[in-house]
Amino acid sequence: MLTNDKLAEWDRESFFHPSTHLGQFARGEAAQRIVTGGEGVFIQDRDGNKLLDGFAGLYCVNVGYGRKEIAEAIADQARELSYYHAYAGHGSEASITLAKMVMDRAPKGMARVYFGLGGSDANETNIKLVWYYNNILGRPEKKKIISRWRGYHGSGLMTGSLTGLELFHKKFDLPLAQVIHTEAPYYYRRPDLNMSEADFTAHCVQSLEDLIAREGADTIAAFIGEPVLGTGGIVPPPAGYWEAIQKVLDRHDILLISDEVVTGFGRLGTMFGSDHYGMKPDLITSAKGLTSAYAPLSASIVGQRMWDVLVQGTDENGVIGHGWTYSAHPIGAAAGIANLKLIDELGLVKNAGETGNHFWQTMREAVGDHPNVGEVRGEGMLCAVELVAEKDKRQFFDASEGKGAKVVAAMLKRGVIARAMPQGDILGFAPPLCLTRAEADQIVSATKDSIAEVLG
Amino acid sequence: MLTNDKLAEWDRESFFHPSTHLGQFARGEAAQRIVTGGEGVFIQDRDGNKLLDGFAGLYCVNVGYGRKEIAEAIADQARELSYYHAYAGHGSEASITLAKMVMDRAPKGMARVYFGLGGSDANETNIKLVWYYNNILGRPEKKKIISRWRGYHGSGLMTGSLTGLELFHKKFDLPLAQVIHTEAPYYYRRPDLNMSEADFTAHCVQSLEDLIAREGADTIAAFIGEPVLGTGGIVPPPAGYWEAIQKVLDRHDILLISDEVVTGFGRLGTMFGSDHYGMKPDLITSAKGLTSAYAPLSASIVGQRMWDVLVQGTDENGVIGHGWTYSAHPIGAAAGIANLKLIDELGLVKNAGETGNHFWQTMREAVGDHPNVGEVRGEGMLCAVELVAEKDKRQFFDASEGKGAKVVAAMLKRGVIARAMPQGDILGFAPPLCLTRAEADQIVSATKDSIAEVLG
Ligand SMILES: Cc1ncc(COP(=O)(O)O)c(C=O)c1O
Ligand SMILES: Cc1ncc(COP(=O)(O)O)c(C=O)c1O
Repeated sequence: MLTNDKLAEWDRESFFHPSTHLGQFARGEAAQRIVTGGEGVFIQDRDGNKLLDGFAGLYCVNVGYGRKEIAEAIADQARELSYYHAYAGHGSEASITLAKMVMDRAPKGMARVYFGLGGSDANETNIKLVWYYNNILGRPEKKKIISRWRGYHGSGLMTGSLTGLELFHKKFDLPLAQVIHTEAPYYYRRPDLNMSEADFTAHCVQSLEDLIAREGADTIAAFIGEPVLGTGGIVPPPAGYWEAIQKVLDRHDILLISDEVVTGFGRLGTMFGSDHYGMKPDLITSAKGLTSAYAPLSASIVGQRMWDVLVQGTDENGVIGHGWTYSAHPIGAAAGIANLKLIDELGLVKNAGETGNHFWQTMREAVGDHPNVGEVRGEGMLCAVELVAEKDKRQFFDASEGKGAKVVAAMLKRGVIARAMPQGDILGFAPPLCLTRAEADQIVSATKDSIAEVLG
Repeated sequence: MLTNDKLAEWDRESFFHPSTHLGQFARGEAAQRIVTGGEGVFIQDRDGNKLLDGFAGLYCVNVGYGRKEIAEAIADQARELSYYHAYAGHGSEASITLAKMVMDRAPKGMARVYFGLGGSDANETNIKLVWYYNNILGRPEKKKIISRWRGYHGSGLMTGSLTGLELFHKKFDLPLAQVIHTEAPYYYRRPDLNMSEADFTAHCVQSLEDLIAREGADTIAAFIGEPVLGTGGIVPPPAGYWEAIQKVLDRHDILLISDEVVTGFGRLGTMFGSDHYGMKPDLITSAKGLTSAYAPLSASIVGQRMWDVLVQGTDENGVIGHGWTYSAHPIGAAAGIANLKLIDELGLVKNAGETGNHFWQTMREAVGDHPNVGEVRGEGMLCAVELVAEKDKRQFFDASEGKGAKVVAAMLKRGVIARAMPQGDILGFAPPLCLTRAEADQIVSATKDSIAEVLG
């Protein structure tokens, strides 16, 4: 490491950070934090702060920081074989082993796994496969993708189009024309406050039916959704949602892509969110939880009915023209193997369900009655606290007041990291799956005190 | 590692390999190779074969296999801090240090570096930045991207569109409408055999001028090109090409993206291909050579005139809505630091120029006169041997004969890996930059013998 006193300066002068205010950062007006280490649910920075990471990086460090088992697996793989490509039937012991382990854990009906680098490129792969599929089936018009407002599926051109959040569209000419959006399954923000949860599910289903009727089912290839909306606000679906949506898709021969980048490998207290909600996906996107972010790796898990058509496609056309140089990278694969073993050994799927439920229920008890807390919601190791200006009328704060960001800043002073979600004043929590009850309680009390500080 | 006797079976049953014939692979009809280790320019597989890798993985293992310095840097980073995100001004000592090291090596006029995972996502980032740039400048119509036939820029929806090769378009509905292609700067395949190299350069320039006139310069945002065409056939440009193209772009206010995924960090015998050819890029794409593939990492290096507009953009609109969870991943950054140091210490940029030139010149002497060798070309540590049915008439083999693939298979029997490039019968060579003259000679003699075996 060439660490020296100039690090902070080099950072401002050289480094283009993602999702950052570039001008403020370069001029030294925006926060800078150089993270140096971590242990369990805590990270340390260069200024000596130790922080409880209530968002597990970007909901990805599922097993927690500083796991020696994964570090040593990476080290061993780096010494043995850091890289060879996976094109044209090549593989490494690690990538093949991980392929097997993923398939053993995947929901029923899945056939193969394609490894990429991150969630965005996995969704990119998935859209390419969906188009290829319909071309092989001789349905060249069946290509549009339905996504949901407030979905998050990445930040590329196609994947940022799938994402249904303004920040990721504005000034980038997105969404692209092939992507259309339908209602977010967000009960708290239902259009009519008098709707019951069942009414609202029916409303979402009707909106989808209307969209399909308007566009024509023979122009629509696939529907993509996160089992639980993540970056759009951390919102579990209303009761009966996935069952009803699945029926609509089946009726119109529309493929289902379950984006499990956040929910895959345990976060909801089940191995996959698709299992949790009884979804029957044709493609599952996964990334974060696959390696707990110790090394980049994503997985597109392909269902049997798609796989059969892909095989037909290469039998008719030869080699499939898709691949990344770093597909199935051995370092990522080694990290994935060690990570999945650790999840089993530590019982983290179970803990995500149990401690997760404890966490968001305690949060609800602690802050749910505050006049500026509209809703506290959760599922497994995911929790959100939604702030409102007026609770009874469900009147939101003006975005320019930045209430969510202020509460998050107040929490940071208390040594706890939460995330101000990008659209709305929503405090987001997605701690490592190894969270203990005591740590959960620490997050809850920091949240309570910070809300009191900012909102009274 | 869960290695066991079932590895080969698991592979066929679980693993969706990139750029593979899926049907044949699943049925056990296509080759399978499980790579277990490597040292210098050699790899080893599970069946005990030791092979000289004349393509450095996928032209990426630039420092060669088994470099302990990089493996230990990865191991140390994994133990210290495997991951924290880089959003909102966060960083790690490794990612900041590498940002500084990249900027120190970049051509003049570059301002910042954005880190992604692979070459495709770096180009995806670049296209997003180009669109953002013209939106901030109030030129919403200036958005089309000109790429070249036979360019390779990735395999996503946008990046596969930029790629100008049939395999990556067919059955995927590519290219997308925003991408238009111009002439490949491929002198050997010039439309008229009587053209001199200077004539052909003028012809390429005129084709570009015509395309711009047809589309309207105010609709064209950027031109993307590899300094030396890579996957399209390993083709150095005709004399004067980049100088002339650069003038056209300047005149029409069109940005230049130099895709240096293959050429960046030394392959041409200069740190960057842009330096090699005097290009003045607004964006440089890099990946492979940045880490020698020891861990996934890419870099989009942003020039000053673009950076100024990005700063203006965030001053006007707030945080830029772009990022990957694994942007600037610490493991990739640690690998990058160790790799760039090693390149300096071992003098690999110089060796790429010197031994590279020796290599392709020896190749030319050895096989250039063969009646089925149309051309032997090279630049730095890149070389191609193009096969033809009839030399004088420059008549190519029918693709269905697979002559290139047959020669490559014959070379494999001789313990040397070359690549049959995807379009045309072209043997491609891009060995690690640490290649010795003796190893170069070994590749040359295997090539010569294999051509004789297959073509007489
Ligand atoms: C559900 C979901 N899909 C896709 C992505 C994109 O993943 P990445 O940032 O690794 O590209 C994310 C990232 O947060 C996500 O939450
Ligand atoms: C010039 C060039 N650009 C981009 C890419 C895409 O890189 P990746 O395969 O890492 O996505 C490649 C890969 O070979 C390349 O050669």
